[in-house]
Amino acid sequence: MRTYLDCIPCCVRQALDASRMVTDDVAVQERVLRETLALVNTIEFHRPPPWLGQQIHRFLKTATGDADPYREAKHRSNRLARELYPRLEEAVHAAADPFAAAIRFAIAGNTIDFGVKTHITDADVREAVHVAETAPLDEAVLTRFRRAIESARDILYLADNAGEILFDRLLIERLPTNKLAVVVRGQPIINDATREDAEAAGLPAIVEVIDNGSDVPGTIPELCSPAFRERLARCDLLISKGQGNYETLDGIAKRVFFLLRAKCPVIARHIGCEIGCMVLYENGYPQDGPV
Amino acid sequence: MRTYLDCIPCCVRQALDASRMVTDDVAVQERVLRETLALVNTIEFHRPPPWLGQQIHRFLKTATGDADPYREAKHRSNRLARELYPRLEEAVHAAADPFAAAIRFAIAGNTIDFGVKTHITDADVREAVHVAETAPLDEAVLTRFRRAIESARDILYLADNAGEILFDRLLIERLPTNKLAVVVRGQPIINDATREDAEAAGLPAIVEVIDNGSDVPGTIPELCSPAFRERLARCDLLISKGQGNYETLDGIAKRVFFLLRAKCPVIARHIGCEIGCMVLYENGYPQDGPV
Repeated sequence: MRTYLDCIPCCVRQALDASRMVTDDVAVQERVLRETLALVNTIEFHRPPPWLGQQIHRFLKTATGDADPYREAKHRSNRLARELYPRLEEAVHAAADPFAAAIRFAIAGNTIDFGVKTHITDADVREAVHVAETAPLDEAVLTRFRRAIESARDILYLADNAGEILFDRLLIERLPTNKLAVVVRGQPIINDATREDAEAAGLPAIVEVIDNGSDVPGTIPELCSPAFRERLARCDLLISKGQGNYETLDGIAKRVFFLLRAKCPVIARHIGCEIGCMVLYENGYPQDGPV
Repeated sequence: MRTYLDCIPCCVRQALDASRMVTDDVAVQERVLRETLALVNTIEFHRPPPWLGQQIHRFLKTATGDADPYREAKHRSNRLARELYPRLEEAVHAAADPFAAAIRFAIAGNTIDFGVKTHITDADVREAVHVAETAPLDEAVLTRFRRAIESARDILYLADNAGEILFDRLLIERLPTNKLAVVVRGQPIINDATREDAEAAGLPAIVEVIDNGSDVPGTIPELCSPAFRERLARCDLLISKGQGNYETLDGIAKRVFFLLRAKCPVIARHIGCEIGCMVLYENGYPQDGPV
C-alpha cells in the first residue's frame, strides 16, 4: 500500500507521541519532530507507510541513544498476554470451532500496536478479547484459509507485536507446525515482536522461529536479510499479522491471509471495512491457483 | 501564547483538511501540505500559532488562486446565524440577566470556527446554543466584566468568525456602543469575519466597525495596520472573541476579557479548563489597576 496524504499528519503526530513515550526531554522530542517533518516532506508516495515508520523510529533511537526504546512496553505487553493466556486457551478449547476461535483471539491480540496509538491500556486489550469472542469472521474466507493451510507446502507466519505473539500461539498450535515458520523482526522497532518476544511466548519449543533481519515495522522484502528473502521466495502461503505487514505486503505475488484489526482510517478504507474491525482478509493471489 | 510541540501535527492536519475543503485537486493539496511541512520545520516557537495559520492559508490562497476560499462557508454560517437569531434574541430578552445570556450566546457562536475543525455542522452550532443556555459563567469574572465595561473610556470588541459575529450582536447591543468599536480582519483568512460579515450582521448601523488591516487568524499588532495599532494603543479595554485572538493577545499589556470556546487541548490547558468549555476569562491586567 502506498503512502497517502492522510498518512503525513498522522506520522508527524506519531513521531511526537512516540518521542514523548520514550523520553521527557523536550529538546529530544523537538529534534525527532523536526527530523520527521523534513523526512515526510521528501517522501515518495509510492513507498508504504512502514518505510516512514522505520526512519522516524531510527531518529528516535539515535536521539535517545536507546536502541530499544519500547523495551519496557513490550515486557508489559508480554506480561499482560501471559496473564490472559490461560483463559483464552480455555475458551479456544471449549469453542465449537477452536480454529476459528484461535483466529479471533489472534486478531484481538493485534490491538497491542503502539504504532498507531501510543497508549494502549490493558482495558483496551481486554475489551478487544471480549469483542473477539463473538466477532463475525467471513465464513467463505475462513473456509479458503483452512484449505490453503492444508494444501500449502511451506507457510510463513509473519508476527507483528510483542504480547500479541502469545495470542498468535493459540492459532499457531492449531497449524501444521512441521511446515511452518514464525517470522519476527530482525531488530527492535516500536513494540514489534523480536526473537526475545517469540521466546517469551515459548514459540521456539513448538515451531521454527526466524527473523527477517530488518527494523521496518512491516515486511519490505528488499530491506530484509538474504536468508529471509530466500525463505519468502520458497514459501507458498503467508499468514500476515497486523497493519504494518498488510501495508507492505498487500501487493505481493504470493497467496496471503491477513489477520489484523483495522485501526487507521486509511487502512480501513483500503480494505473496505470499518475502523476497529477484526479482519481476516485474503489478497486473492493467485486468482486461478489451486486451493 | 507561544506555539507548542502539539501545535505542529495539528497544523499539518489542518493544512490538509483546509486544502481538501477548498479544492478537490490532489496536486494542490499535496503542494499545500509540503509547503506547510517546510514552514513548520522552521517555526520559531515563540510565535503564536495564528502566525502559522496566516502562512498556511496564504499557501492555500496562492495554490488555489482564490483569495477567499472560505467565502461560501462564511455565507452559510451567516445564513445559519440569521436563522437562529430571532430565537436567541427572544431568549436574551426573556432571560433574568439578559447581559449574561448574551455573553453565553456570543461564546456559543465561537463554535463556528473552521480553523480547528474543518467541518462544523449546523447541528454542532445548535448543540452549542443549547449548552450555552445553561452553561455556568464565572460570576466573579462576570461582575468584573460589567464594571470594566462601565468604567472603560474606549473599548475594542475583537470579532472572530463569520456567523459568530451575528451572535456577537446580541452582546454588542447591550454594550455602550458610543464608546466601542468592533474590529474585523483586514483580509479574508479562514472563516474569520471581515467587514462584509459585519455588514451581513447589520453592525455598522449600530456601532463603529473597523478592520485591523491583517490576514492573521488572530491579532498580532505588529502585523496590523498603523490605524488599528493607534486605535489599539488608545483603547483601555478589549473584549476578545475566539481562540486566535486569545493565542495572540493573552500576553498584551491591556485589560482583556476573552470570550471563547476552548476547542483545542493546548488552549484548554493554557487557560486551565476542559476542552469544549465556554470560557469568560480575564487576563488579569492591570493587577492593581482600577476596576
